[in-house]
Amino acid sequence: MSTQDTPRIAIAYFTGSGHTRRVAEAIAEGAGAAALIDIEAMTPADWQDLDEAEAIVFGAPTYMGSSAARYDVFLEEASSRWPDQLWADRIAAGFTVATYPSGDKLSTLVRLAVYAAQMGMIWVGQAEIGAPVDPDKPGINSVGSWLGLSATSSRDKTELVGADDLQTARRFGARIAAATLRWRE
Amino acid sequence: MSTQDTPRIAIAYFTGSGHTRRVAEAIAEGAGAAALIDIEAMTPADWQDLDEAEAIVFGAPTYMGSSAARYDVFLEEASSRWPDQLWADRIAAGFTVATYPSGDKLSTLVRLAVYAAQMGMIWVGQAEIGAPVDPDKPGINSVGSWLGLSATSSRDKTELVGADDLQTARRFGARIAAATLRWRE
Amino acid sequence: MSTQDTPRIAIAYFTGSGHTRRVAEAIAEGAGAAALIDIEAMTPADWQDLDEAEAIVFGAPTYMGSSAARYDVFLEEASSRWPDQLWADRIAAGFTVATYPSGDKLSTLVRLAVYAAQMGMIWVGQAEIGAPVDPDKPGINSVGSWLGLSATSSRDKTELVGADDLQTARRFGARIAAATLRWRE
Amino acid sequence: MSTQDTPRIAIAYFTGSGHTRRVAEAIAEGAGAAALIDIEAMTPADWQDLDEAEAIVFGAPTYMGSSAARYDVFLEEASSRWPDQLWADRIAAGFTVATYPSGDKLSTLVRLAVYAAQMGMIWVGQAEIGAPVDPDKPGINSVGSWLGLSATSSRDKTELVGADDLQTARRFGARIAAATLRWRE
Repeated sequence: MSTQDTPRIAIAYFTGSGHTRRVAEAIAEGAGAAALIDIEAMTPADWQDLDEAEAIVFGAPTYMGSSAARYDVFLEEASSRWPDQLWADRIAAGFTVATYPSGDKLSTLVRLAVYAAQMGMIWVGQAEIGAPVDPDKPGINSVGSWLGLSATSSRDKTELVGADDLQTARRFGARIAAATLRWRE
Repeated sequence: MSTQDTPRIAIAYFTGSGHTRRVAEAIAEGAGAAALIDIEAMTPADWQDLDEAEAIVFGAPTYMGSSAARYDVFLEEASSRWPDQLWADRIAAGFTVATYPSGDKLSTLVRLAVYAAQMGMIWVGQAEIGAPVDPDKPGINSVGSWLGLSATSSRDKTELVGADDLQTARRFGARIAAATLRWRE
Repeated sequence: MSTQDTPRIAIAYFTGSGHTRRVAEAIAEGAGAAALIDIEAMTPADWQDLDEAEAIVFGAPTYMGSSAARYDVFLEEASSRWPDQLWADRIAAGFTVATYPSGDKLSTLVRLAVYAAQMGMIWVGQAEIGAPVDPDKPGINSVGSWLGLSATSSRDKTELVGADDLQTARRFGARIAAATLRWRE
Repeated sequence: MSTQDTPRIAIAYFTGSGHTRRVAEAIAEGAGAAALIDIEAMTPADWQDLDEAEAIVFGAPTYMGSSAARYDVFLEEASSRWPDQLWADRIAAGFTVATYPSGDKLSTLVRLAVYAAQMGMIWVGQAEIGAPVDPDKPGINSVGSWLGLSATSSRDKTELVGADDLQTARRFGARIAAATLRWRE
């Protein structure tokens, strides 16, 4: 893949205990390359990466049925780009992580998609039908989440996120990268 | 429990291949007694049960990220009770079933809760923290769903719904019954 | 109304420029009495009011399609009450304010209702059909919002919130107070 | 615009009393050209238009806080395209109409966006900031809805939908057409 063909993707995540960062890394791996931005330690260079990105991937744990509050603070800061629609017509996607398989994670993904819509962005969801519907893809999108990626925290503190969810995340990253290139004018 | 103390609960469900009916039965079992209403075969007596119920439990499978269309048809018919707010101030609750643990089921529960709010009803959600957060309740609310009950279809055609989800459903039925009695004037 | 009959209601709000506080005051007025809690200045007495309340009303402006981030921080702090379900079986209700009539405010109300469900609370929505459907109630719930109260910021900086929305808020407060008394064991 | 440059857009709508069709027509007008498909009278040619479209716009009135049930029936029929992801990677967008300015219309738009995500589609929302935030665009997106277009039924039976909402719809159609061409490989 030449530089020409490398989409500029920024993944803006908040991680409470490492799970969400682990998923962010897997998405970046699948995308080929991406700026990994920890929103707790934003630098001017991070803001520049966001402002110059062709695609922004939003990722936050689900706490109490919505995105983690620290992430909401970041989203509100970034809304300084709203009045001039600076991020309009960029690709957007979202992911979340929680302790439970469902865990009301869809609430977080809806919140991210509505935010991206207010920013004028184009939303790329999941498009993976895993097992049991597609028996050839065991473990892919195993919780069944389409508006974005939903991962489940592994109880194994070393592993953080299970291999299946990481594989799903890599495929999601590849999908976002392909969409970003296709969307390029 | 005397008749006096038996809450009048109606469970209005649609079932595609039996899973949702199985959960409805478990909720009824937990509630002590309930009118089980299959919305595909509504009789005048069923409508009377609904109109005289102190609590209505709405249950539908999640198909393509929302309640099954056949159920939506029922909800729209029942909205003839909306202009006069005939069901206002009754207790309401909801449940859904899908193939995947998450499966965008929260979308169905939100849809049911918004509908119930339009009808003026009082919404009773789940209040169960199962394992892993509460290790003493393995299998209870294992997907992590609070606005209502989310069950996962068992791949075992005989079983239909796993024992853990049925146990969660019985506890949900008991909670709804208790809330209905407490709400009684 | 004797002290005996006064429900203990706490209204926990965040206000950016006064609009949300104005609605909170109107709800309190309709409820007869309520502890008005500005979540930016929580004192131990405020937390005690929340922990001892029979009903908690959650109120936040909608910023960028969800509750204001400062409010999300408060909700996350309050989730220390989640593992022991300290607020379970209390009455809950919600309201929001934004510049636009719709303004994606339903997203905030859903977020609040899902949060309350995780806390094990019982959700009381709006039950007002205003004009044009009910011509006898001009201005009541004029935007058409049922899961909770949605108000629109007045462009008049002195007025903050229009008379119709304040009247709707007073009626909402009265409904919450009545529900709280009925729910009392 | 040459045929080459004309995107193939299909607008699949249900209309109860004409309002939603009126908005569909305005979107088609803004898009330049589009197949207008009344889902109550689907022909094999209509299904072919959908299956060959580069973009599908979903439109339904909001009844009782979600899409009209007749539309849900259509969406469920169309889900025969889900297992093979026949509509994947097409552009999707949504609109809704209701009596009230808010009217819980966001619930319908979320339902449509989640459905489109399950179908693997790419979601294009509104990107219009109207007055009062942008005083140069009075009447554009005046209710404030971004995930898709929200129109309000005019009480004038001849007019059906007000001029401002129709103007917003035309602009939305133009945006969808531009996005479809940009997305073309």
